[in-house]
Amino acid sequence: MPNELHPGTDKALANCIRALAIDAVEAAKSGHPGAPMGMADAATVLFARHLKFDALNPDWPDRDRFVLSNGHASMLLYALLHLTGSPDMTMEELRNFRQWGARTAGHPEFGHAPGIETTTGPLGQGLANAVGMALAERILSEEFGGDLVDHRTWVFVGDGCLQEGIGQEAISLAGHLKLGKLKVVYDDNAITIDGATSVSFSEDVPARFRACGWHFVQADGHDHAAIDAALTEAASVTDRPSLIALKTVIGYGAPKKAGTAAAHGSPLGAEEAQAAKQALGWAHPPFEIPAVLLDQWRGIGNRGAAAREAWGQRLASDPKGAALAQRLAGGEPAGLKAAFKTARDALFATPQAVATRRASQIALESLTAALPEMVGGSADLTGSNLTRVKSVEPAFTPDAPGRYIGFGVREFGMAAAMNGMALHGGIIPYGGTFLVFSDYSRNAIRLAALMGVGSIHVMTHDSIGLGEDGPTHQPIEHLASLRAIPNLLVFRPADAVETLECWEIAVKNRKRPSVLALSRQAVPQLRGGRPGLDAPNMSSHGAYVIRSYGAARDVTLLATGTEVSMAVEAAEALAAEGLGVAVVSMPSWELFEAQPAEYRRRTLGTAPRIAVEAAGKFGWTRYVASEDDVIGMNGFGASAPAEVLYEKFGITKDAIIARAHALTGK
Amino acid sequence: MPNELHPGTDKALANCIRALAIDAVEAAKSGHPGAPMGMADAATVLFARHLKFDALNPDWPDRDRFVLSNGHASMLLYALLHLTGSPDMTMEELRNFRQWGARTAGHPEFGHAPGIETTTGPLGQGLANAVGMALAERILSEEFGGDLVDHRTWVFVGDGCLQEGIGQEAISLAGHLKLGKLKVVYDDNAITIDGATSVSFSEDVPARFRACGWHFVQADGHDHAAIDAALTEAASVTDRPSLIALKTVIGYGAPKKAGTAAAHGSPLGAEEAQAAKQALGWAHPPFEIPAVLLDQWRGIGNRGAAAREAWGQRLASDPKGAALAQRLAGGEPAGLKAAFKTARDALFATPQAVATRRASQIALESLTAALPEMVGGSADLTGSNLTRVKSVEPAFTPDAPGRYIGFGVREFGMAAAMNGMALHGGIIPYGGTFLVFSDYSRNAIRLAALMGVGSIHVMTHDSIGLGEDGPTHQPIEHLASLRAIPNLLVFRPADAVETLECWEIAVKNRKRPSVLALSRQAVPQLRGGRPGLDAPNMSSHGAYVIRSYGAARDVTLLATGTEVSMAVEAAEALAAEGLGVAVVSMPSWELFEAQPAEYRRRTLGTAPRIAVEAAGKFGWTRYVASEDDVIGMNGFGASAPAEVLYEKFGITKDAIIARAHALTGK
Repeated sequence: MPNELHPGTDKALANCIRALAIDAVEAAKSGHPGAPMGMADAATVLFARHLKFDALNPDWPDRDRFVLSNGHASMLLYALLHLTGSPDMTMEELRNFRQWGARTAGHPEFGHAPGIETTTGPLGQGLANAVGMALAERILSEEFGGDLVDHRTWVFVGDGCLQEGIGQEAISLAGHLKLGKLKVVYDDNAITIDGATSVSFSEDVPARFRACGWHFVQADGHDHAAIDAALTEAASVTDRPSLIALKTVIGYGAPKKAGTAAAHGSPLGAEEAQAAKQALGWAHPPFEIPAVLLDQWRGIGNRGAAAREAWGQRLASDPKGAALAQRLAGGEPAGLKAAFKTARDALFATPQAVATRRASQIALESLTAALPEMVGGSADLTGSNLTRVKSVEPAFTPDAPGRYIGFGVREFGMAAAMNGMALHGGIIPYGGTFLVFSDYSRNAIRLAALMGVGSIHVMTHDSIGLGEDGPTHQPIEHLASLRAIPNLLVFRPADAVETLECWEIAVKNRKRPSVLALSRQAVPQLRGGRPGLDAPNMSSHGAYVIRSYGAARDVTLLATGTEVSMAVEAAEALAAEGLGVAVVSMPSWELFEAQPAEYRRRTLGTAPRIAVEAAGKFGWTRYVASEDDVIGMNGFGASAPAEVLYEKFGITKDAIIARAHALTGK
Repeated sequence: MPNELHPGTDKALANCIRALAIDAVEAAKSGHPGAPMGMADAATVLFARHLKFDALNPDWPDRDRFVLSNGHASMLLYALLHLTGSPDMTMEELRNFRQWGARTAGHPEFGHAPGIETTTGPLGQGLANAVGMALAERILSEEFGGDLVDHRTWVFVGDGCLQEGIGQEAISLAGHLKLGKLKVVYDDNAITIDGATSVSFSEDVPARFRACGWHFVQADGHDHAAIDAALTEAASVTDRPSLIALKTVIGYGAPKKAGTAAAHGSPLGAEEAQAAKQALGWAHPPFEIPAVLLDQWRGIGNRGAAAREAWGQRLASDPKGAALAQRLAGGEPAGLKAAFKTARDALFATPQAVATRRASQIALESLTAALPEMVGGSADLTGSNLTRVKSVEPAFTPDAPGRYIGFGVREFGMAAAMNGMALHGGIIPYGGTFLVFSDYSRNAIRLAALMGVGSIHVMTHDSIGLGEDGPTHQPIEHLASLRAIPNLLVFRPADAVETLECWEIAVKNRKRPSVLALSRQAVPQLRGGRPGLDAPNMSSHGAYVIRSYGAARDVTLLATGTEVSMAVEAAEALAAEGLGVAVVSMPSWELFEAQPAEYRRRTLGTAPRIAVEAAGKFGWTRYVASEDDVIGMNGFGASAPAEVLYEKFGITKDAIIARAHALTGK
């Protein structure tokens, strides 16, 4: 009986959410009314009695986080923010749901309004973000004490989040690490877009969570007292994450569509909307909340004000308070400049002919020592990614939240958890895997770029140069496919100095994610300098002339990563023949595109250009006349020693020289 | 006591595998000895007593499938193929493990030798492939009868496969659909690359599988009798998939490294290799198998010969045998040409101004009616992807294997299962999701391209044209990032006729995967023709002049998908001003690149070119002078009605006209 309402003191409060969700979806003529209507009771009880927040100060750092992982239920979140009095979420915004320029996007967008803790919609990722938030809380609580850092992360998930593989990665990791402040509320409505969940989903969900070390409790999702009891029980469990499974009715209140897929992703329609309001006992005009209910909601929004004030006083008096405040403020870390300079001086004094993954480890040794906000990890490739260094020892375990996280073989979960850590604040997360497995984590990298979040991806084994593991492990199209993502910084440094420089840029960029594509195989250090000199970070230009031979350029060689030293060798040979040659190292296309036009023109030159990169050629026509001028890969790689592969695939000094001859006619 | 050997009659047989794995990894100076050594006993028992196969006829269609999901254990598979006598897997191949040109790549590569059922290495995907194989078996068994189709799919998995999210997607789907012939053997060695699994993995694995509806049995993975009993029990369970968890010791036999991560991914080293052989009682030179053992192994390889012959006789005598043989032979489906022609005649007779996703559904109605090998599905977006049509009713359920699979919200698992269905043979799988979620399934699409497998991805909501769902759901970089994958066909058809044409090409291409990028919003039908006329499939050229105005070209407009009709409108306006304009529709860059140079030159012309595509501009410099000549997206999308987005992001007829004026000076 979907439209038979349970009694409950807060029922009218929940109906405020339902009415707004109905109205906004009707006005937009698109959207998802079912989940907000089904979860309105749970949200009301959570916000009214459990969630620690202060609506007028939605960015209070010690607030509980609320993540709506089933992001299509966005109107639930917008209604809650409006009702509790979040300043930016006016009724006008709700009226403009899903319209150009509104804060109320179809799916919640981080940055549109405080209180939207992360961007959700691609299912499962909100849950994984929340794992990252809970990790961050635990690390910071250990570092700064429970007086200053002590909050929970609450998550709403739907069936989709639990069907997505990343959901399991998040569940498994959270259970393993015993994230006791992570509390997940499951909208168990037995409906997905294609119909009943029984079409595709017949798991014993509680058993799966229990198998992964979770606490489990369930309740009728429309019985406020039962919800309250379940949330209370979950909150009392501190040694494990909790799943609170609520049996709900999607589209609760809609006489015809409740409990069916028809309530999921389309407006109810005028008639059913009206009937739903009637069934709910809601007699108010669209987008109108009676003052008495709005007052109650504003009271809920104000519940945490005293706690927030008390926290502010503790922050002011705690000896660690200032340091925490600085950490939470974000921006460029205080010690970065000095750590970078010291590390570069060391490279200038003692050049390192190493793989760039090893160069990255050298950089990490300095940076993590200076920057306590850096927290590392790897998706079970620590010894290959070289992401672990002394300062981030020991590991994060169930008993002690260290600075290194063994994410397990869970690339996507790792990337989304990194986003959650960055979103939480106070942490600069980096995590390692092989570049080819950016395929697995790709959508989390995308969401970081969309949100403007500075997660740092250490992606080693960046070309056929990884050798014998073969084509399944050799990235070909990955550099291009990552360069195609807006707002992402893709770095492929050429040597130890560039690797350090790229790390500095990545750490500085707190609002853009970075991918560092690093080699398995060694390269010479191409750049030196006088230690102590305040030399510029050349990689910050994205591309620059690293070698120049002859007075006038006959040809320009563009290269990235391990192929820069090959290009230098070719250039030297060409110069010996009397040609004018410039070698341009291009560690980051994105940063180069952001340079002034004159700098770009000067760097690229007007002579014929050849690109050298041990990867697919796609995209290089931005800088060279045709893909014939790219010394790169035409197809997938193969399993053989690296030097054999370079030779067989024709990525050689001789190939560069031959193409230069053909282009210059010299 | 890793090096204390259990007694067992087949122990010496298992040691053949171990010795070959040790030798090959030592010779290659790279590779993974630990898993082959740990799983040698299980593999021996499986091949000697359970797996239905005939080594001399490794492609026998009714063989059991053996999938090595933990592909880094490749030497296990190569050793098995060699020992059982698979013709292509000579000792020379084992000696050349991981070398250029060898069949013995670092990870198993489909196509390198019969018996390698799928390419594995990227973890979790082999398991999901196997789910697809089991689905295919069940569908074909229903269609052709259990006399002709009745085989199991056996899978070896490691911890990584179970940690990866896609593993859970596969497990959950297989349990839901009660794939009773799927039998998964878990190498429970408690070790991953980063050390003990306890670093990151502490699940109750049996409980998780049971929660997902699986049968579970466990055994000592080095006790042949116990393994045999467990496999026998699993084989007897027909109503559920089985997990056979074997407690094993990684690097079993190596005195110092067994049971540690040191045995995982590096050669044992000469000394430890020697010590391991001694401990195993193996006194033979490298790459030598004593005749008595080789004879026994060849006997194992011959175990299924009689069954294969009997099957051949049944195939010959069964009334459905010829049809099955034809289906399994693959190649272009018999009814394709006629179905295509009928469907195009219908479009020529009654033009359809519809969304290309709807055009796809129209195409599917004809194609699936004519081609029983087509099996459809969607990752819980059936009503949006429009992948379901009459001929693929009813759905695949635990009780009846229909032609439509509700994959649930499991894009990656779906794509990998589709690969498995295609690899199995007899099925042309297609599956739907939103284009943006190609991010989730990306690596399975890549592996299809690498393997040469014709999975077909129906990816709707292909641009900002999806409107209000906003930037999380609007693909921007996806077309470019898919075009960057070698051997993948990426289609973005402009209208109903092109959509049908692209479908025909996709179905024809049984050795290349396809992505059909389809619109949510309607487009006019741009092409007509006389029904009954044998008109060419214009989309097969990849790009072609769809409209031409004026005697000489002043400008060429390149466009794809929904923007072709916009380009045509702009061209008409420019033509009215007196300009010579050609509009080139480019449904597939890959097919266009494969055309003769003269065709490409003629199509692109020498006049200035403008590209129009509601997507990121990355990659278009292949065809236009600079990204300034691309009418497309510079960043992420936004949440608003589609027409507002096109206007706000400047993807309009007027923008095309303005750029044409600027380029032509007219």
